[in-house]
Amino acid sequence: MKRYDIAIIGTGPAGLEAALTAQARNRSLLLIGPDGLSPKISKADSIRNYLGLPDVSGPAMRAAFLEHLESAGIRITGGQVKNIYAMGDYFAVQTGGIDSMYEAETLILATGLPLSKGLPGEDRFLGRGVSYCATCDAALYRGKKTAVIGYTPKEEGEADFLSELADEVLYFPQYSGDVRTAPAVKVIREKPVEIAGEKSARILKTDGGEYETDGIFILRETIAPDKLMPGLELEGNHVKVGPRMETNIPGCFAAGDITGPPYQYIKAAGQGNVAALSAAAFLAAKQKQ
Amino acid sequence: MKRYDIAIIGTGPAGLEAALTAQARNRSLLLIGPDGLSPKISKADSIRNYLGLPDVSGPAMRAAFLEHLESAGIRITGGQVKNIYAMGDYFAVQTGGIDSMYEAETLILATGLPLSKGLPGEDRFLGRGVSYCATCDAALYRGKKTAVIGYTPKEEGEADFLSELADEVLYFPQYSGDVRTAPAVKVIREKPVEIAGEKSARILKTDGGEYETDGIFILRETIAPDKLMPGLELEGNHVKVGPRMETNIPGCFAAGDITGPPYQYIKAAGQGNVAALSAAAFLAAKQKQ
Repeated sequence: MKRYDIAIIGTGPAGLEAALTAQARNRSLLLIGPDGLSPKISKADSIRNYLGLPDVSGPAMRAAFLEHLESAGIRITGGQVKNIYAMGDYFAVQTGGIDSMYEAETLILATGLPLSKGLPGEDRFLGRGVSYCATCDAALYRGKKTAVIGYTPKEEGEADFLSELADEVLYFPQYSGDVRTAPAVKVIREKPVEIAGEKSARILKTDGGEYETDGIFILRETIAPDKLMPGLELEGNHVKVGPRMETNIPGCFAAGDITGPPYQYIKAAGQGNVAALSAAAFLAAKQKQ
Repeated sequence: MKRYDIAIIGTGPAGLEAALTAQARNRSLLLIGPDGLSPKISKADSIRNYLGLPDVSGPAMRAAFLEHLESAGIRITGGQVKNIYAMGDYFAVQTGGIDSMYEAETLILATGLPLSKGLPGEDRFLGRGVSYCATCDAALYRGKKTAVIGYTPKEEGEADFLSELADEVLYFPQYSGDVRTAPAVKVIREKPVEIAGEKSARILKTDGGEYETDGIFILRETIAPDKLMPGLELEGNHVKVGPRMETNIPGCFAAGDITGPPYQYIKAAGQGNVAALSAAAFLAAKQKQ
């Protein structure tokens, strides 16, 4: 498997700037994230203080960023990262099933603002009945009862896939609008409030009832960083970084909103630049050993 | 005298971004520096990694920055800051004689890469025979012997001005090319190596000889930050800052190359953004008291 110098997770300003800087330093890079860029960019109103782009609209900023990537010949690898494994001297990044694995010497986390805290019980049962990736873990639930909590319509495909193996799939959409799932998927419009169990997750409690289950899949747009990579040190809700954007895990850096406020485009880009230079310096030091 | 909310010293990417952000936060601001922007910007070769401006040349980047300032209605106050006084609950900034004083509640230092360490003896005699501003201190040297070390041709005017009052002005240009000073100014093409004296600076030693003097004016493009503002804490050659770009002096922030490597445009801009937001937060907290 090709091992990249730097894997960059996230296609907001921090991730994009990290990619440009990694390339300027002649490092091989993998840039993973929504290939239309972070949806937050296009949704932005007029941005007045991104130096060099006067009074730019969200869509115009997105276009400027995409043009920059294209002129630099940088390609985005689409997909959402489901798991990251710190392997000692490299990182393995999983975006989907076992065929969607990537390896890199260093890692830059730039996945944006962490969402609010998870459900009560989510932390406790993660890996023991709670999963963030149906396509990764479906095989474990052959013939079993499962629940899927989907925060965007694109998770419907995950529920469908799961229904081909599992005996029961309850789907709890956390968005308004139509739901188009396979006939085997049972849609329940309730809001999950807690995950309960003893050794493993067994019950999903909602504002409408309780559901017995063998596995609960929680599929959000963004996965909290410490759940993506166990052992990553946080400060409150954010990844803790030093002045060179280093995390507590050697070779792993972070940049942008994930590191805390202020939540600003140009600040995120500046941190992406620093993170990529730090990753390049880390690689150079490693190669000297 | 008008007291600004935020005085920003420096017109590189850090200072410009700080100004845009201060304005976006509805703060009154004073932006001081070379009004053609930092000369380092136009001298830059192609810049590949300033996200949003693909493969931009130095002059094109300068044009984009100036256009952004103009569209935001931000004016640069030309001039070089000679002294900064921390007055307790505000700052006084001096760019020339006593008629060039400005006041601000908060300060952002963004003067760029500090030059190499000063001459031996420079620190020791600063304020006792060593000065960084001829127009500020000329009156002290009426009828006396002075030496002026000029690092750019624009310091020739300072030497000329001094020669109207001082009895002797020796001018040591530290650049190549023509020198056009007033007839009373004696030009000596030698390189200063040390400043000596007992209670005050009395002798300028060069690679060609020794000169007795009552006052030595050292006129550089950039004045080392701790000399601009006594009491400012450094880390090596750079201003020491915390994660919110705060210095050890309350209300004083710093951004860009002055805070240390990496020396990169987008990182400097990102720090300018953070510094301005921190200054705005500082002002808000102060107004609540």
